[in-house]
Amino acid sequence: MISVVFLGAGNVATHLYKAFQNAEKVEVVQWYNRTKSSISSYGNTVAITDDLQDLKSADIYILAVSDDSIAKLSRKLPFENRLVAHTSGSVNIHDLDKKNQRAVFYPLQTFSKDANVDFSQVPICIQALEKPNNKLLKDLAKAINSKSYKINTEQRQTLHLSAVFINNFVNQLYRIAHEITDAEHIEFDILKPLITETAKKVQNISPYMAQTGPAKRNDKKTIQRHLKQLESEKHKKIYKLLTSSIQDTHGTTTKPITKKESTK
Amino acid sequence: MISVVFLGAGNVATHLYKAFQNAEKVEVVQWYNRTKSSISSYGNTVAITDDLQDLKSADIYILAVSDDSIAKLSRKLPFENRLVAHTSGSVNIHDLDKKNQRAVFYPLQTFSKDANVDFSQVPICIQALEKPNNKLLKDLAKAINSKSYKINTEQRQTLHLSAVFINNFVNQLYRIAHEITDAEHIEFDILKPLITETAKKVQNISPYMAQTGPAKRNDKKTIQRHLKQLESEKHKKIYKLLTSSIQDTHGTTTKPITKKESTK
Repeated sequence: MISVVFLGAGNVATHLYKAFQNAEKVEVVQWYNRTKSSISSYGNTVAITDDLQDLKSADIYILAVSDDSIAKLSRKLPFENRLVAHTSGSVNIHDLDKKNQRAVFYPLQTFSKDANVDFSQVPICIQALEKPNNKLLKDLAKAINSKSYKINTEQRQTLHLSAVFINNFVNQLYRIAHEITDAEHIEFDILKPLITETAKKVQNISPYMAQTGPAKRNDKKTIQRHLKQLESEKHKKIYKLLTSSIQDTHGTTTKPITKKESTK
Repeated sequence: MISVVFLGAGNVATHLYKAFQNAEKVEVVQWYNRTKSSISSYGNTVAITDDLQDLKSADIYILAVSDDSIAKLSRKLPFENRLVAHTSGSVNIHDLDKKNQRAVFYPLQTFSKDANVDFSQVPICIQALEKPNNKLLKDLAKAINSKSYKINTEQRQTLHLSAVFINNFVNQLYRIAHEITDAEHIEFDILKPLITETAKKVQNISPYMAQTGPAKRNDKKTIQRHLKQLESEKHKKIYKLLTSSIQDTHGTTTKPITKKESTK
């Protein structure tokens, strides 16, 4: 049995808390938050506190707080040489106060406030400054059916950056498609199966192999017509930049899309 | 029973052919291709030909050929007043020769050559110049378990453009993440669940509601660190442009990311 004290009350904290509560091999012994009211609704399932001096003993203290609060909160902890982990994709492990044993337990997934999270679909990036702690971190991930990966700080920051591309930026491309179809009174629903299939395809083949379309084919006629169709200058810019990025990747053309061509 | 003659031998033709072969209410009576050898392997399941003068009688002739070939092939058809449909997302319905009844049967999905296609996950955009033909097009889609949508040429071209954003461009963002993680010797597999979840999220909530991350929060510290981490100038440009697009959408900031800020 692994005993856990939670600190913080954000999305990650809440979802992890629920997963640990359901895990046979984990016991959440306490939940701390600066403002008790944010976690008071859990008061009947776990001991809650807003006083750091009150913190109980546990195998691991999980600091699921905002990036900016991690260092400060770790300094305030009133004990030494216990295992303390943050859950951030970008904060350096050395930002944790060195009076304790330092670790990272970073779930690489997007969490919605309300939706339930299936942790078997959440890779956990683990890191421990004291090597023997890797086992506990790995067991903790396993207890909620998550796959864990030993990842150093630089790699974790690279993953965090990559996540912005495949989550935030991809989602923004969905948004742009939504704007474009809305303007023509087309149901966005028609595009949903393609969104699903595009994500599904790269589960088995590389994005390089999965690529198709006018940019890869260097189908200038279609590219020019698409640029004409786009009304927003920003959308045109995104279209041109990503088309050129695809062509760089696939060596389709050495020529950029020039102004001259786009007015043909 | 709907009788179909297929023309063309590309991905769309092949996948549609297989779906129609498996459909109880459809009979593929013939498959034409300019070069017989491309379809000769199907010779034992359907009559094949490379001679347009040989075309059999059918309820619908499906021209699943490249965009540039549609008009020309439709002119060469040696009959009149029959139903002829192309399968393109971007070609105008009026590009089909008017001696026949004109229609569009455009499956909005990405097709891989080898993977089997589940047509229940393929929306079909249908269009008919002669209104009564809409029923046959709808029945044809239904016969392969596809949902059909009545879509005019302008809307179809908008969907085709949107598909470039949510398929080709999204896939290129996956590719960039692959490049970034590869450079740090990180398994791309770690990102796959996030790719899946990002696509899944917008099946139920709008991309606007689904957005999270540093751009939306206007978390300048993280944005600047990410820009520093990116080694490729092209990737930096894409990061800045999509960050700014997210901020336009969510009204997060009125200031662009200036050179001054990025050297802080």
